[in-house]
Amino acid sequence: MAEMNDIRMKGFHQRISVEGFYTIIDKNTAPNPSELVHVTECYDRVLCEPITSPRNVPDFNRSAMDGYAVKGEETFGAASYNPISFKIRGRLTPGQEFKEEIQKGETLQIMTGAPLPKGADSVLMAEYTEQVGQCMHAMEAVSPGKNVGLVGEDIQKGEKLFQKGRRLRPQDAAVLASVGISEVSVFKKPTVDILVTGDELLKPGQFPDGVKIVDSNSIVLRHCIQRDGGIVKMIRHLPDDLDLIRTALQESSADLVCISGGSAVGVEDFAPSLVAELGELLVHGVSIRPASPTGFGMIDHRPVFLLPGNPVSCLSAYDFFVARAIRIKGARNLQWPYRSIAIKLGSNISSQSGRVDYVRVRIEGSQAFLIATSGAAILSSTTKADGFLVVPEASEGFAEGETVNVCLYDS
Amino acid sequence: MAEMNDIRMKGFHQRISVEGFYTIIDKNTAPNPSELVHVTECYDRVLCEPITSPRNVPDFNRSAMDGYAVKGEETFGAASYNPISFKIRGRLTPGQEFKEEIQKGETLQIMTGAPLPKGADSVLMAEYTEQVGQCMHAMEAVSPGKNVGLVGEDIQKGEKLFQKGRRLRPQDAAVLASVGISEVSVFKKPTVDILVTGDELLKPGQFPDGVKIVDSNSIVLRHCIQRDGGIVKMIRHLPDDLDLIRTALQESSADLVCISGGSAVGVEDFAPSLVAELGELLVHGVSIRPASPTGFGMIDHRPVFLLPGNPVSCLSAYDFFVARAIRIKGARNLQWPYRSIAIKLGSNISSQSGRVDYVRVRIEGSQAFLIATSGAAILSSTTKADGFLVVPEASEGFAEGETVNVCLYDS
Repeated sequence: MAEMNDIRMKGFHQRISVEGFYTIIDKNTAPNPSELVHVTECYDRVLCEPITSPRNVPDFNRSAMDGYAVKGEETFGAASYNPISFKIRGRLTPGQEFKEEIQKGETLQIMTGAPLPKGADSVLMAEYTEQVGQCMHAMEAVSPGKNVGLVGEDIQKGEKLFQKGRRLRPQDAAVLASVGISEVSVFKKPTVDILVTGDELLKPGQFPDGVKIVDSNSIVLRHCIQRDGGIVKMIRHLPDDLDLIRTALQESSADLVCISGGSAVGVEDFAPSLVAELGELLVHGVSIRPASPTGFGMIDHRPVFLLPGNPVSCLSAYDFFVARAIRIKGARNLQWPYRSIAIKLGSNISSQSGRVDYVRVRIEGSQAFLIATSGAAILSSTTKADGFLVVPEASEGFAEGETVNVCLYDS
Repeated sequence: MAEMNDIRMKGFHQRISVEGFYTIIDKNTAPNPSELVHVTECYDRVLCEPITSPRNVPDFNRSAMDGYAVKGEETFGAASYNPISFKIRGRLTPGQEFKEEIQKGETLQIMTGAPLPKGADSVLMAEYTEQVGQCMHAMEAVSPGKNVGLVGEDIQKGEKLFQKGRRLRPQDAAVLASVGISEVSVFKKPTVDILVTGDELLKPGQFPDGVKIVDSNSIVLRHCIQRDGGIVKMIRHLPDDLDLIRTALQESSADLVCISGGSAVGVEDFAPSLVAELGELLVHGVSIRPASPTGFGMIDHRPVFLLPGNPVSCLSAYDFFVARAIRIKGARNLQWPYRSIAIKLGSNISSQSGRVDYVRVRIEGSQAFLIATSGAAILSSTTKADGFLVVPEASEGFAEGETVNVCLYDS
């Protein structure tokens, strides 16, 4: 690591491949421990244990229709020209229970979801009846069992509901509530501290002036971290001051730290040497464009990402590397949240073999075109773009007319 | 409307088509007014006005590399065997300014992002130099303008940044901050009150007992509403009590109300007649399965959705109808948030012409199969399913082997 501490103003000696970086991230990050959340709050959380149903849903036979509970065989032969009459013993709505048993020739008016009374085995829909006083005329037959939901028809006691690792949908949370579960064991969301360094930076919301510019990386990081299931614990803006940055790194109690700026080999780029001083600097310099001055290390078992100050590099480094660590910690799948489409290229895209390229494209008609002005500092290239494509390490690019996969930003 | 008030226990006279329902929703809902939010909070909000940049980004010429600011023509002819020497006048990091002008034979050490000093027109990368004391030896030539980002290279003053209606990405929020905007005018998020009615219902987190079941619809609604950009203002659980439900409807101050349960034609289904009493009942009964007992009306210019108590119906009614109203109010596009894929059917799916069907399917290998147990009451059909397909009104279904579009729940 000594060598790495010392590369300021000398350029990167060696850049790690994207895949090599992934291996290091995977080795140094593990899923968070679990926490219990109330069932109304478990949406989009990741289950930390498999779940088996503690009960039947429903736990009673219930009417699936509004109508009349009958013994089906008593309606056989009923028709509009040959109505069969039943004495109405009462009316049952959901949540009520009929304690007696209905007898031959009797019926009970019953609403969808109400428990089927003893003595009945089916429900004749209201549409096929006529009610006259305390008498119901069945105008159609109903077969035994018809329009009745049996015990456990939705969920059976002991049934395996969800595997560990399931990302809970709205309806999953609903199923957990319906079997009577009140608290759910899920992976804790990873917390992230964001340190934004740079003498030149103003905070978002301030007006840029003179040679000062507004920090925008904290905004990109904050929102992407939230999107990927993380919690931003703290955002600090710091000058290029070795001691202040060191203290901030030592004080962090988050699961993960992102330092934006000062990651490269300039004289004010303190972050790499600080990580090496306080812990271990494992990566510095990656074969990717933009975002090559990205770094990674561990301080007190805490992953620390060194992100380039250039905004496009920062976004690219986040999506390629930080997002992966956050998703591992949150036990989420590693796929990008971007929807990808296959589309023909309207421009040539050249790259360098041995380097991954993150290329912003706009889509016009049925073709994707390179965004003309697209340096690492040109944040507007990512707002003018509809998405991006990745040129793999082994490729030297794509020719006009080739079909490529484009990841859409709005997806 | 009188007729509609009176249909309990008689079945629906007439069901409106899904498209007909859409027309009524579209006529009765409009985008919310605007509100100002801080630029750090505008992610995923929808712009209420077009935005033009008030300034150039950057507002000064800046170095795009770590290296030395020079007049390019003074380096012509430099090579490792023929270094050209410059006197180092100092060092400039981002946020600092060099007030003088560098003269012939002079250079300034400069970091990425620092403002280019007067007298220089390019930056020679550190990699192509050697520094000995106060002297820099250029080992390579650099052409004028090289490695310099000019005023406005990212964003030009007066440039149109975003159209009204843009849903802001993380990087969009970052661009807004970088041009010095602190507050952004966005459409107010629609607020929603959820009234859950039913004597049989326990609140989520309670344990089902006897003939009582746990309400799960409020969970599905709450999460789907949040997902679609709405804010759940209040969730109330109410018994099947006409007066209590009336009071709750009158007390609502949300942009939109959802009533779950009591929407059909059972004796305890008070919701439709209450909407007719307090306002106007515009829809009751839809040609869709499940979710046919869905209703819609207006009370005090407030859209009110009557949603079936059956959980699959509730989810289906939400996605088809409520989501549309929420997205209109929030000025979002009307597309479902589900990613759709084309896939072959492994089962036949039969439907009724004249009715839209919402069919849950699971995906196995490269085929989609119908979920066997899939009535409106079987919530677990939506957790066992990988997604759903929609059988259009004009169709009588699909045959095994046909390619259909399946919307994925996890997307």
